[in-house]
Amino acid sequence: MFGRSYFCGEVPETAVGEKVTLKGWVQTRRDLGGVIFIDLRDRSGIVQVVFNPDLSQEALEIAEKIRSEYVLDIQGTVVAREASTINEKIKTGKIEVQAEKVTIINEAKTPPFMITDTTDVSEDVRLKYRYLDFRRPVIFETLKMRHQVTKQIRDFLDSEGFLDIETPILTKSTPEGARDYLVPSRVHPGEFYALPQSPQLFKQLLMVGGVERYYQIARCFRDEDLRADRQPEFTQVDIETSFLSQEDIMALMEKMMTQVMKEVKGIEIPAPFPRMTYDEAMSRFGSDKPDTRFGLELVDLSEIVKDSGFKVFSAAVANGGQVKAINVKASADKYSRKDIDALTEFVAVYGAKGLAWFKVEAEGINGPITKFFSEEEVNAMKATLEASVGDLILFVADKKSVVADALGALRIKLGKELGLIDQSKFNFLWVTDWPLLEFDEEEGRYFAAHHPFTMPFREDLEYLDTDPGRVRAQAYDIVLNGYELGGGSLRIFERSIQEKMFKVLGFTPEEANEQFGFLMNAFEYGTPPHGGIALGLDRLVMLLAGSSNLRDTIAFPKTASASDLLTDAPGEVSKAQLKELYLTLNVNK
Amino acid sequence: MFGRSYFCGEVPETAVGEKVTLKGWVQTRRDLGGVIFIDLRDRSGIVQVVFNPDLSQEALEIAEKIRSEYVLDIQGTVVAREASTINEKIKTGKIEVQAEKVTIINEAKTPPFMITDTTDVSEDVRLKYRYLDFRRPVIFETLKMRHQVTKQIRDFLDSEGFLDIETPILTKSTPEGARDYLVPSRVHPGEFYALPQSPQLFKQLLMVGGVERYYQIARCFRDEDLRADRQPEFTQVDIETSFLSQEDIMALMEKMMTQVMKEVKGIEIPAPFPRMTYDEAMSRFGSDKPDTRFGLELVDLSEIVKDSGFKVFSAAVANGGQVKAINVKASADKYSRKDIDALTEFVAVYGAKGLAWFKVEAEGINGPITKFFSEEEVNAMKATLEASVGDLILFVADKKSVVADALGALRIKLGKELGLIDQSKFNFLWVTDWPLLEFDEEEGRYFAAHHPFTMPFREDLEYLDTDPGRVRAQAYDIVLNGYELGGGSLRIFERSIQEKMFKVLGFTPEEANEQFGFLMNAFEYGTPPHGGIALGLDRLVMLLAGSSNLRDTIAFPKTASASDLLTDAPGEVSKAQLKELYLTLNVNK
Repeated sequence: MFGRSYFCGEVPETAVGEKVTLKGWVQTRRDLGGVIFIDLRDRSGIVQVVFNPDLSQEALEIAEKIRSEYVLDIQGTVVAREASTINEKIKTGKIEVQAEKVTIINEAKTPPFMITDTTDVSEDVRLKYRYLDFRRPVIFETLKMRHQVTKQIRDFLDSEGFLDIETPILTKSTPEGARDYLVPSRVHPGEFYALPQSPQLFKQLLMVGGVERYYQIARCFRDEDLRADRQPEFTQVDIETSFLSQEDIMALMEKMMTQVMKEVKGIEIPAPFPRMTYDEAMSRFGSDKPDTRFGLELVDLSEIVKDSGFKVFSAAVANGGQVKAINVKASADKYSRKDIDALTEFVAVYGAKGLAWFKVEAEGINGPITKFFSEEEVNAMKATLEASVGDLILFVADKKSVVADALGALRIKLGKELGLIDQSKFNFLWVTDWPLLEFDEEEGRYFAAHHPFTMPFREDLEYLDTDPGRVRAQAYDIVLNGYELGGGSLRIFERSIQEKMFKVLGFTPEEANEQFGFLMNAFEYGTPPHGGIALGLDRLVMLLAGSSNLRDTIAFPKTASASDLLTDAPGEVSKAQLKELYLTLNVNK
Repeated sequence: MFGRSYFCGEVPETAVGEKVTLKGWVQTRRDLGGVIFIDLRDRSGIVQVVFNPDLSQEALEIAEKIRSEYVLDIQGTVVAREASTINEKIKTGKIEVQAEKVTIINEAKTPPFMITDTTDVSEDVRLKYRYLDFRRPVIFETLKMRHQVTKQIRDFLDSEGFLDIETPILTKSTPEGARDYLVPSRVHPGEFYALPQSPQLFKQLLMVGGVERYYQIARCFRDEDLRADRQPEFTQVDIETSFLSQEDIMALMEKMMTQVMKEVKGIEIPAPFPRMTYDEAMSRFGSDKPDTRFGLELVDLSEIVKDSGFKVFSAAVANGGQVKAINVKASADKYSRKDIDALTEFVAVYGAKGLAWFKVEAEGINGPITKFFSEEEVNAMKATLEASVGDLILFVADKKSVVADALGALRIKLGKELGLIDQSKFNFLWVTDWPLLEFDEEEGRYFAAHHPFTMPFREDLEYLDTDPGRVRAQAYDIVLNGYELGGGSLRIFERSIQEKMFKVLGFTPEEANEQFGFLMNAFEYGTPPHGGIALGLDRLVMLLAGSSNLRDTIAFPKTASASDLLTDAPGEVSKAQLKELYLTLNVNK
């Protein structure tokens, strides 16, 4: 224990009668008629210390000078509290320490906010004084949980024969989704390192090298604007295996996640996790990362209303689109016309030109669009929607992607508003059978849905030239409570397929060779089939901590105002010169 | 085991009679009169597979096409080898697998070097084909050892209540020894992040925050030229504690290192480790990181020869310098005059203007300087040097630092040449009581010997203004076999002392505040006494692996020729423009 008898929050009842030394911070000080009570805090919790003139006048006099957050060394005797003063709210509530000697190790100014779980100061102030924020138990416990999660993951992967291998931070730029941070090299003027968006190429090279099972808790980087759910540097649990099938990898991850849930949260999660194809997820939930903790699924009514008198519906179907609805059970009376107008504005953000609706009443359906439908159509809709009296039905008719986005987002919003989400649940889900490629209409070309190293379904390879959009990928995302926790895939391990992939993505053979020749050459020296996954650690900890603030899971997060972490250009280069240069970089990238 | 029955190197004798599936790479193929033998290798080792026409003609025909490093899936039966064909050199040498079916998973070109422990290709070729280098058992085992070392360290620190906390890679520039890598921010044009040389400030802020015990296996960066023993990115085991004394921290580290040595190397290291002050190390070994596996200590003869007739010696002492010698026991006949001339050239590199010497013979001492000394002086030297017949005595007379550098280096050279170093020994050593400051004669000012946050001895604080050079630091280095494994210190935790330290280092109060105001403000909010240590992981693994090549401990090291890892300036910025800019940065930093 290195010079202290116990941590404050762990002084046990069995210590009554013991002389102890404690160290910590002053949480509160109360002066009750010449006797001073101090709550002494360290990272383990709190213990009450009493300064009594009968015991030590000298200690009492020092205690009078003590203020919140002073750092103290206390020597005293543990005594049992009288029954009337027992505090059941804290672990050490049955005892207190009678101080015989106190040393002020360091003083403290009045902190700008209280060191308590709840605080009403802005996050900016908390982050400015992050070192005080760490003393708040809720933040410390999140840091501790992050430690525990990584420890569990490391222990599990170690026990399964994975090697923790560090890959470079200073590396070569590779084209992934986001922009790379570039690091000018002074040793090679005019050339740059790039900070990795993921260790993808390195982990594949380790597999070529016969390492077979690699993992790393890897720092990754994206030079993009901050968003609430995005940090320019983030951490992923990066895993790669050789000779394993998609099923093998998914089973391993299930074993790992159930162990983490059990050891960190004390919750038994049944495995295997539910699975769903990408198509099914989009169809039922309007999302590729569905939150399955509640219903409100999307119901396809296109077939029923395609010939209806409501032109918005029939035209949508005729143009290749869809008409889908959500049945908001027993909620007709909860949503006024004005409320529904607000929902219409909400879906407009996702491109929906309107939000049709009706309510199911004992007399029939009621709402502005009801007159357009035949009784047969109404009955068929009601049957398909499993509608009953009191239900509110909300429709979007548009092209497939707009219907999914709008109703998918509306579903989440309604689920939260109506309190349909059981916050104690942890619903893991695999989403499989992703499309390999996505067509970008603006650029008029295909992009890799995951990344260009993802292995297509072998039986779909023949469509790579003729109909790339229908090629499915051997890719799998793990989803938790509506968040994408991670994404994985089997990788291409044959040069010929990798070359074809780059061709489909619009690379000339020369460009592909220049950027990825290193990897494709490696493929020719005995490359095993391989695949892996990457999990977002920040997000995992956020979900396990029951937080909705990603920054609370990171010791020193970046904030929009955190330019104090930046430094001016060194030496005598003018700021204007650099600004000009990087604006140019920015424009031309 | 995910689709295979065993790893190749682990097929046990008890498996005889079993049908097995194995996967791996072809190490060698031998065709012996229509029967083909393949050594199949994976990361665990090798097993022999036999293709016999009596068993499967089809498998044999495929086996004929197989070349080195092909990736195979083999199905067959484990059989015991005949006594005459047992191979005691490999773990699976008593069995072999009779192949019934073989699938070529992937083909391989002929590798540019053999996949064996010893290879005569250049390191450049090995690193170019690093993915093949990984398949060499010696390299794979080093990666595995690195994993084991980090796992042991993590387990130990976890068990001692340390939290693994990630600190930022994108951070603010702070003045340490080396140059920072700078990362231009596109979101804040004209401003830069710096990559950390260590997480020093962050770990101190964690201590201010009451975290008490922090560790991280942290990537650190220095924008400097490559050297054999230096990489621009390196990894350190970074540790910080609160309320612990120097003795506590040293004891913790001893417990950690003995556990690592026991679990990874199977070697019991006695603790506590030997300790030596900086002054003693410099005096006895001419080094602040002495290799204590052998003798050849430096002996101070200044007092004996200060009035001698040999002017080189007496002048050196008169000018405030020293005369020291090494007694190379029983080696007089091993070093000819020509050999000693070569040693003279060797010490000249360290600034020594000459290397005086004599040999101890039955008749007396023999050598060019012997005539200058009285019998009394000779006897006193011999007694102090514990010299006997057959010894060679080598002298350097110069200012103190030159004597230490020259004889310190000579000692190591002679220790190696004469085979005095027991390579199986792991000699840990603490070097303590460092000077706080070093005077730089060129710049005419003091620099921090460790870093500006190191706590002086309290009893030396009074000299900070008057005689800074004599202030000792509460700093401790851990040394292993002559390498600095890590350095630690107690830190300043009071604003007033930190301000004084910056003043001594030549900062104006404004400069100190601008660069370190954040930390000094934090000190005012209840900062506990704290201290820690940082250990070089790359070097530790190198020493445990018995290697002398730092790069072999790093999966993807940088090399002088590794400009293929750099990328050209993106977009349309001219290379010349960037080159000019970074040359300017270089000059002005």
